[in-house]
Amino acid sequence: MTEEPTITTIAQHAGVSIASVSRVLNGLPTKAETERKVMSAARELGYVPNSAARSLKSRRSNQIGFAMADIGNPVYLAMIREIQPIFKAAGYRLVLHSTDADTADEIDVLRGLGERYIDGLIMIPLRLTGEHLTMFAAARAPIVVIGSVPEDAPVDNVRTDSRAGVRLAVEHLHGLGRRRIGFVNGPLDTVPGAARSAAYAEALAALGLPYDPGLTQVGDFYRAEGARAAARLLDRVPDLDALLCANDLIAFGALDVLRRAGRRVPQDVAVAGMDDTDLATLAWPPLTSVSLGSAERGRAAAELLLDKLENTRRAPRVVTVEPRLVVRASTDPSRIPGEEAP
Amino acid sequence: MTEEPTITTIAQHAGVSIASVSRVLNGLPTKAETERKVMSAARELGYVPNSAARSLKSRRSNQIGFAMADIGNPVYLAMIREIQPIFKAAGYRLVLHSTDADTADEIDVLRGLGERYIDGLIMIPLRLTGEHLTMFAAARAPIVVIGSVPEDAPVDNVRTDSRAGVRLAVEHLHGLGRRRIGFVNGPLDTVPGAARSAAYAEALAALGLPYDPGLTQVGDFYRAEGARAAARLLDRVPDLDALLCANDLIAFGALDVLRRAGRRVPQDVAVAGMDDTDLATLAWPPLTSVSLGSAERGRAAAELLLDKLENTRRAPRVVTVEPRLVVRASTDPSRIPGEEAP
Repeated sequence: MTEEPTITTIAQHAGVSIASVSRVLNGLPTKAETERKVMSAARELGYVPNSAARSLKSRRSNQIGFAMADIGNPVYLAMIREIQPIFKAAGYRLVLHSTDADTADEIDVLRGLGERYIDGLIMIPLRLTGEHLTMFAAARAPIVVIGSVPEDAPVDNVRTDSRAGVRLAVEHLHGLGRRRIGFVNGPLDTVPGAARSAAYAEALAALGLPYDPGLTQVGDFYRAEGARAAARLLDRVPDLDALLCANDLIAFGALDVLRRAGRRVPQDVAVAGMDDTDLATLAWPPLTSVSLGSAERGRAAAELLLDKLENTRRAPRVVTVEPRLVVRASTDPSRIPGEEAP
Repeated sequence: MTEEPTITTIAQHAGVSIASVSRVLNGLPTKAETERKVMSAARELGYVPNSAARSLKSRRSNQIGFAMADIGNPVYLAMIREIQPIFKAAGYRLVLHSTDADTADEIDVLRGLGERYIDGLIMIPLRLTGEHLTMFAAARAPIVVIGSVPEDAPVDNVRTDSRAGVRLAVEHLHGLGRRRIGFVNGPLDTVPGAARSAAYAEALAALGLPYDPGLTQVGDFYRAEGARAAARLLDRVPDLDALLCANDLIAFGALDVLRRAGRRVPQDVAVAGMDDTDLATLAWPPLTSVSLGSAERGRAAAELLLDKLENTRRAPRVVTVEPRLVVRASTDPSRIPGEEAP
């Protein structure tokens, strides 16, 4: 080896994931076998701690950007908790941007790539505009987009099947005998809002339930806006027996409203969220939620970006993470919260 | 006026706060009278939208850093929600760093000031080392520290009286008739951990209660660590009738543990947190918490930094924010959650 080893080359040599190398080099608990493989590969390749970092520092800002809509949404925290240690092990500092899903702010962050204050960027645009795509094409540094992008976009892409996720939740609520299943969504001009709206209608159709636009209410992806939207929906449809919310924060707002209205959850109204955030077990009752694999998506995005920084000419890649349903007491009265894992 | 107006000069001219100017220029809802004053001052000073931003952009990175211990702690979110719009109105992009209270990471961020990738920094070091102080003295750009610093530190400083905050909580629990008041703290080698530990002992003494070291347990400022520490304390002191937690995340962990142990909150054990985060009303029961004025502290820090960027030679300033107790159902069974504000 003439080049200095990096965590990518160590991972290849050891036959383990980049995340595993990162864990070992960060001194985090790892399976003994994995640790042995990593340390052995590191020795063989002549790795000395931080040499990867030093070799990169020479020409670079040594910073990676992560741009998300709302730093207050724990779905992004779950991603950051995976992304940060991977880049730290590789000698990069992670800088975070909270854009409020404001396109101008996102474009401004993309401009930062041109100003070379970051060497690469992971971003989650809720609205994908022509300006985003133009900036992607012009970017002089690698970009990973978490979310949907056109197939020919010149960026690496990590996506989840939120349609399948919505279907899992609707089928679950239907399976519990619920037939008046409301849906509180975020704005329809966002990528997730549009996808989840279509998926809700499809899922009902697949179950032979009629699609009633009166059962849906658009708000925004925050707790206060979720509460307002849920309140409007409940006023309009008092005999609602289930409520699917397009993310957990909306569901927390809905729980606030249902409690104030004296409606029991889940006996009167079963409530499900999406994203399966850390807070799902803080809420009362603990929230059933569709996991869209935020930790996995964060890890995949970090690995793609790190790989692209070292293999700048390779073609864009797509990684897809499958959703799964996590059932808790907000839909299933038989779950006793006292027995829930923390 | 020969210089281009900035949001600071507009605020001075209009006789309103920088935050108010920021709200008006960002198009956020503001009192009509304030809006009139700001727009009138802006006109008189010849302000054109974004000219402040443009005039600053020439020589600067146009970025401000905010370094906090844990992006997952909503106390920092409350600060960011105040800081970001103020800098946005002034033409700056906010970049966030989550350091896990790791001194090496914090020093690395301070180094970023020297690399001129940020024009100024707001930071909240949980452990203040000699290295921090050396970097403060050497910094070529302004720094605001939220937390305690030595009196002669060459930085602006925003602090709260967490000692008074602990006293408010202990007096409240004592007033409810509780006499076995446990305390779950973060690490004692952190600034807040040390201050809150001393304050707990003082508050008991002031009430004539004995200080029993067996009633205190040190963990860390996270939910999972809070749960572990609370579990140890409960094992050791089964007749505990109140629990003060050094922040809200610890209190959420304690609520998890108490629920699993079948202890009713607040009837068996009254629980209070500190920071009064957004999540206090998500938890069950809603959490009594000591507000340390996170929004006010964030706003004060942003205003100090913005002022210092324009008046680079002025002496360091200190702003102090007073704590206050927010009582909810986790200590007071008479509070009916259905009547709680969202």
